[in-house]
Amino acid sequence: MVAPATDSIRTDNTLALIRSLRAHGAMARVDLAAANQLSSATVTSISGELLERGIVVERPPNARNLGHRGRPKTLIALAPDAACVITVKLSINEVRFTAGNFCGELYYSDTRAVDTLALTADALIGLLSRHIDALRQRLAADSGPVAGICLAVQGIVSPLHGSIVWSPAFALRNVDIVSPLRARFDCPVQLENDANCISAAITRHPDYMDTRNLAVIMLGYGVGMAIMIDGKPYLGAHGSSAEFGHTKYESNGALCACGKRGCIEAYVSDYALYRDAHTLLPLPSGDSAHPSEEQMQALVRLAESGNPIARQIFAKAGHVLGTGIANVLALFNPDQVLITGSGVRAYDQLKPSLDQALHDALVEELIGQTRLDTHGWDHDMTCTGAIQLALKAADHRLVQFDRPGVLPLS
Amino acid sequence: MVAPATDSIRTDNTLALIRSLRAHGAMARVDLAAANQLSSATVTSISGELLERGIVVERPPNARNLGHRGRPKTLIALAPDAACVITVKLSINEVRFTAGNFCGELYYSDTRAVDTLALTADALIGLLSRHIDALRQRLAADSGPVAGICLAVQGIVSPLHGSIVWSPAFALRNVDIVSPLRARFDCPVQLENDANCISAAITRHPDYMDTRNLAVIMLGYGVGMAIMIDGKPYLGAHGSSAEFGHTKYESNGALCACGKRGCIEAYVSDYALYRDAHTLLPLPSGDSAHPSEEQMQALVRLAESGNPIARQIFAKAGHVLGTGIANVLALFNPDQVLITGSGVRAYDQLKPSLDQALHDALVEELIGQTRLDTHGWDHDMTCTGAIQLALKAADHRLVQFDRPGVLPLS
Repeated sequence: MVAPATDSIRTDNTLALIRSLRAHGAMARVDLAAANQLSSATVTSISGELLERGIVVERPPNARNLGHRGRPKTLIALAPDAACVITVKLSINEVRFTAGNFCGELYYSDTRAVDTLALTADALIGLLSRHIDALRQRLAADSGPVAGICLAVQGIVSPLHGSIVWSPAFALRNVDIVSPLRARFDCPVQLENDANCISAAITRHPDYMDTRNLAVIMLGYGVGMAIMIDGKPYLGAHGSSAEFGHTKYESNGALCACGKRGCIEAYVSDYALYRDAHTLLPLPSGDSAHPSEEQMQALVRLAESGNPIARQIFAKAGHVLGTGIANVLALFNPDQVLITGSGVRAYDQLKPSLDQALHDALVEELIGQTRLDTHGWDHDMTCTGAIQLALKAADHRLVQFDRPGVLPLS
Repeated sequence: MVAPATDSIRTDNTLALIRSLRAHGAMARVDLAAANQLSSATVTSISGELLERGIVVERPPNARNLGHRGRPKTLIALAPDAACVITVKLSINEVRFTAGNFCGELYYSDTRAVDTLALTADALIGLLSRHIDALRQRLAADSGPVAGICLAVQGIVSPLHGSIVWSPAFALRNVDIVSPLRARFDCPVQLENDANCISAAITRHPDYMDTRNLAVIMLGYGVGMAIMIDGKPYLGAHGSSAEFGHTKYESNGALCACGKRGCIEAYVSDYALYRDAHTLLPLPSGDSAHPSEEQMQALVRLAESGNPIARQIFAKAGHVLGTGIANVLALFNPDQVLITGSGVRAYDQLKPSLDQALHDALVEELIGQTRLDTHGWDHDMTCTGAIQLALKAADHRLVQFDRPGVLPLS
């Protein structure tokens, strides 16, 4: 037996209201009804139930919200402590744990240096279990219950099987890290490619939420991509699509972290830029294979001040990136290509040769109407996107009103 | 007012029955009901109406079709002359007109040598109008009414605007050729990329119809591609996706018909292979810029007989094709890549270096479970696919029972 249709419609409407409140903040019931094409009666009924369960709270009206005859309207908002989620970002030599509240706001972050390449599968699962457990206990004092966990990994993951297929951060291959964590923490646990997390953050941004076909390129330690087709993330037949960083610039070219040669990443990523730079230029000491933000900023400043070697390094990277983007335009013909990630720090240096390479590669008709833009990187969207994805899974569980005890809301 | 739901359901069911009969040939009503998850009563009612209108015919039962108690079942089949469609394939220096019957069978073909690059927009529209008109009059004697026209063009077309955006066959750009033909012939007129027509033929093939994510590469005079995502053709935001032939093998490489350098097509297409070959090898005389099938077959035979120059030409083309396919796997991660077109004549010569290039380019995890296969090219699937697309549009018009006179069935 499937659930009666009215239950399923009520669930969908409840999820829609929660999503609206998370995207827009506090809203009057009448505005919430209009935004979701629901009747006021439905919104009043659902919000009543959510109020009773502590999932939303009422807020005093503000001057901007005037109802009939100018009477201010009471607002409702998500209760920040209705639930929280934990995210873990796994990159080379670094594991970052964050917590997000029910409104989707990041409110805790802790970055640990870890020799990721030396980890066995058991050691990785043990490390994640210990840290998530400690964080959960720390959060218990003043947060809601942990309603979901999202792991963001650089490389190829199988969201279907919950396994890391291949990642430059790990020597291990095809390891299921989701099942053991799900068994231990009794909440939805997701595994996502880091670029897909960034895409989840970006597609909730008002500037991009109406773009149907969007390619998001992430520049940073590696080069990642997420693709939205017709408004939905495209994951490929087996979950490893959009590996833009490993498309080819040239056969037998520069060595890539994946072990192959000539990948876009081998010219454009932080490690590639720094590899070319550090023997020739006066740069801060440190790990040249895994350059820090400080090291990368120093390289950008050299180029900005006119140093010809630094300028040449970025000009080459821009040429390679433009050639790679030409292939994305030819194959996908998206509405927009958005470049983001910490690597946008050097976009002014990359842009002239990037534009030139794009126009050298493609006839104007193939460049067409695709917009090429950058999105600033003021915070790590991998974590904020992972919070959004974890909350989405948590919401589904939360609104199953007929399963008492699924999520012990206090 | 929208149409009542029952009308719309009956229309959908009628279209489904016509599609089944076109794909499988004559079927018993009971099998047609089972294949489409419909009741026997519904099939009997719809087929009665289609019989009355001459769209289907009854066929005597055959020995394989036994009903209850072994009684043979009467079959129904599409009436081949219920309607016909005309297709036009536009390539460099050649225009091919074909006609397909209501069962989807090609039954007339006429190829004309035309100096396509010299045509103005008016001359092209005039030429198409005259030839389609002549063909329509010739068909009128023994075929059904012309229910649709499909134009298949090499290059970038806008199916939305009915215009040729850019094609190597023409000097003209952004020309609407659909509106004038639609006005003149009063039937649905479609404009499609040639590779999308091939994809329409292939995805109706029993071997591929269940493949959800499929990239079809067409080798021939040019190099084209069609992409199916989640079972549907992906056309891109503005109709110019899947231009695989114009993705890059190398910056500043061989000159392509598009005017840019280093495109996959500039190494793998017939004109590129013959360009490299004809000055060095004993080959049939003819237009080396637009080699004939005979010229290409002669080049393949030289390679098969061990000629080192011919072998080297195909080895390089295989390497370039494999590198290009690596990018398709990295970005799309499809279930299957299918190589077809007249260029598969040389697949045995291309394969060793193609496989090597793929494995040099990508880690095993990115090659993943994608199957790489070829599909033989015993007839020009551009035309049979265009017939399928024209019939699909014609079917929609045909089943609008409430619009008398839309299609004068005789």
